[in-house]
Amino acid sequence: MPETTLDRATLFDKLTAAKTASLALGTATTGQKDAALGTIAAGIRSSARDILEANELDLANGRENGLSTGLVDRLTLNETRLDALADAVLQISALTDPVGQAVRGSALPNGVRITQVRVPFGVVGAIYEARPNVTVDIAALALKSGNAVVLRGGSAAINTNRVLVEVIQAALAEAGLPADSVQTIDEFGREGATELMKARGLVDVLIPRGSAELISTVVMESTVPVIETGAGVVHIVIDETAREDWAVDIVHNSKVQRPSVCNSVETLLVHAAAAERLLPPVAARLVESGVTIHADERSRALLPFAVPAVEEDWSTEHMSLDVSVKIVDDLDEAIDHIRRYSTQHTESIITNDLANAERFLAEVDSAVVMVNASTRFSDGGEFGFGAEVGISTQKLHARGPMGLPELTSTKWIVRGSGQTRR
Amino acid sequence: MPETTLDRATLFDKLTAAKTASLALGTATTGQKDAALGTIAAGIRSSARDILEANELDLANGRENGLSTGLVDRLTLNETRLDALADAVLQISALTDPVGQAVRGSALPNGVRITQVRVPFGVVGAIYEARPNVTVDIAALALKSGNAVVLRGGSAAINTNRVLVEVIQAALAEAGLPADSVQTIDEFGREGATELMKARGLVDVLIPRGSAELISTVVMESTVPVIETGAGVVHIVIDETAREDWAVDIVHNSKVQRPSVCNSVETLLVHAAAAERLLPPVAARLVESGVTIHADERSRALLPFAVPAVEEDWSTEHMSLDVSVKIVDDLDEAIDHIRRYSTQHTESIITNDLANAERFLAEVDSAVVMVNASTRFSDGGEFGFGAEVGISTQKLHARGPMGLPELTSTKWIVRGSGQTRR
Repeated sequence: MPETTLDRATLFDKLTAAKTASLALGTATTGQKDAALGTIAAGIRSSARDILEANELDLANGRENGLSTGLVDRLTLNETRLDALADAVLQISALTDPVGQAVRGSALPNGVRITQVRVPFGVVGAIYEARPNVTVDIAALALKSGNAVVLRGGSAAINTNRVLVEVIQAALAEAGLPADSVQTIDEFGREGATELMKARGLVDVLIPRGSAELISTVVMESTVPVIETGAGVVHIVIDETAREDWAVDIVHNSKVQRPSVCNSVETLLVHAAAAERLLPPVAARLVESGVTIHADERSRALLPFAVPAVEEDWSTEHMSLDVSVKIVDDLDEAIDHIRRYSTQHTESIITNDLANAERFLAEVDSAVVMVNASTRFSDGGEFGFGAEVGISTQKLHARGPMGLPELTSTKWIVRGSGQTRR
Repeated sequence: MPETTLDRATLFDKLTAAKTASLALGTATTGQKDAALGTIAAGIRSSARDILEANELDLANGRENGLSTGLVDRLTLNETRLDALADAVLQISALTDPVGQAVRGSALPNGVRITQVRVPFGVVGAIYEARPNVTVDIAALALKSGNAVVLRGGSAAINTNRVLVEVIQAALAEAGLPADSVQTIDEFGREGATELMKARGLVDVLIPRGSAELISTVVMESTVPVIETGAGVVHIVIDETAREDWAVDIVHNSKVQRPSVCNSVETLLVHAAAAERLLPPVAARLVESGVTIHADERSRALLPFAVPAVEEDWSTEHMSLDVSVKIVDDLDEAIDHIRRYSTQHTESIITNDLANAERFLAEVDSAVVMVNASTRFSDGGEFGFGAEVGISTQKLHARGPMGLPELTSTKWIVRGSGQTRR
């Protein structure tokens, strides 16, 4: 993709238009927003030919530029995937609207009533990589929560995203909501993304989704507040008292069910007193499913077929059928290891010891901490939130799986009858 | 104050010590924390002589360096003020401990139980100006919410703050909590503050308190997530149907009761149809209390004694007995003016028109929006939170008056019995 000289005035106009649109969107009713989401879903289906043509162009460019098979797959749309995208929009319209929800409230001694209610952020910025489905997902989630959205997708999907945003804007206009509520700034290239990160005052929050590198760049450079959706170097501790069937099933499910996602397990820490009993059956079940085990020296004595673990393995998010294994002397060593290497996403312990379970839950400082459950449950859909905004690994505002309420701020409504302060 | 060459290793050691202390503090019981706060209050009283001696040194340096009368007053401690500080610590110990509170929870269809609970951030950084009471307040609030704290106060209070932190650390040790939980980095000067802003991974959240300039520097430079406590260019709209007695009382209270704070009113927007009826009595009451009125041309026709308002007045936080006044044609113009000039802190409308009241509450995008009440109620103490962490003017994490829960993050606790994901 050629990087054009940045046309700052046009970019600023787009951000300002999004801000203006957000004012109308912020007071739109749930009915209006749901109607618009219905129109968007219909628009995606009726414009399938245009969208797929644009996607074909991106795919041809991608193949020419030597895009990897994985990236080509993520970029590819077809009739089935478009249908799924439209369905996802309808599912989002079926979720509870968080805007206007009262969070808490009370009457002050002088009769003044105060209520904290959910309000949209205003303008949400999203920076992500070459997955056109994110374009539609984020736009629909933002709309449902009353936010305008400025999208910066990967340059590899530029044509697909442009047509998708055109379809969404046309649907918004048809439904009587401001078309400017959804904007793409893909045409401004990398410099446009940098400007977006500095657009404090026009953009209220920025959500990066994608590689650890992308997220880290946004976190370091942005002056707009960021919700970080981070990588997952996820741990499972197999405690001395772990049940064998649970250890085998939970570890297998956590690694194999979908290895390419952030809540799949990357490192097993096995209590020395349980290693001989549990490591061979746990490993056997993994190996059956094609998992490569990277084992420390002590565990290699029990798993001669494993490859030797290197220091780098402990901080690696494999995202593949690979898992690192280490034998630890006790729970202290396990917790210390997690403190050192975890990305504070999700950790689970398999144990029958109540004191150890409670200690693990209290002392491990991750967004999601579990006892005797698969790490794959660390997910907005599984938690019953209905849609995937992302999983926050920061501590401010949102932590762990994010639902629609996490796309809102609040304000305090104060109703008096002439009261003054003494 | 001489700026020393930065000793990065020592600074890093202090931040690391705070992080380590935060692990123990995060699992301390409410009883342990309250006992420590009691010991701190007693320590402040029993060490009064040392504290006041150090304060006398700062005051002497301040007078030599030509510190303004206002700053000298803020810097000054005496027996009475020290007693009030110790009392404030005891009041904080009496607040409800937010740590461990369950925010929400449910059982998933497969029997897995999930609970979102409040946990401390870990390490809170505070950057503020020459007010030694903030040192004690923030330390006590952080402790009660289970957070370690790294303090960077104004250099003018360096001796007072050093002794206060010594007193607090001794009390912590006496109460069996890690003394390293409270650290000062004043001795590292401005460069230390800059390092604090970049200490991502060691410091979990940074709270700047002080001038608009200080806050803006922290917001722009920090890579640690920030909770912005901003300035208040606060507006009151006097609508066509406003009751005269409410307009007179509320405006007077909002301006005069404590003009130097962020929730005092700075600009009045008066509906043209009510100006002749309401502006003269509202202004007369203000002038009686020594308020200078900066009036636009139209309102000067009704208030010949007013000084002419200049463009700069509309964006000025006077923090003094000054108020800007403008006549607007309708509510639209009032809301447009607020959108342009407000810092989104607090705005109030005085009206008897229900539709206008609801429109104002819905369309004005500020942390606190009011009908028929004094803007001085925009305060954590008035809201019943019991202590003043600050008033957030950002939309992420906390908005408006902040209580102890706003000094916490959350984590998800997941309890299973062998469940795996399908």
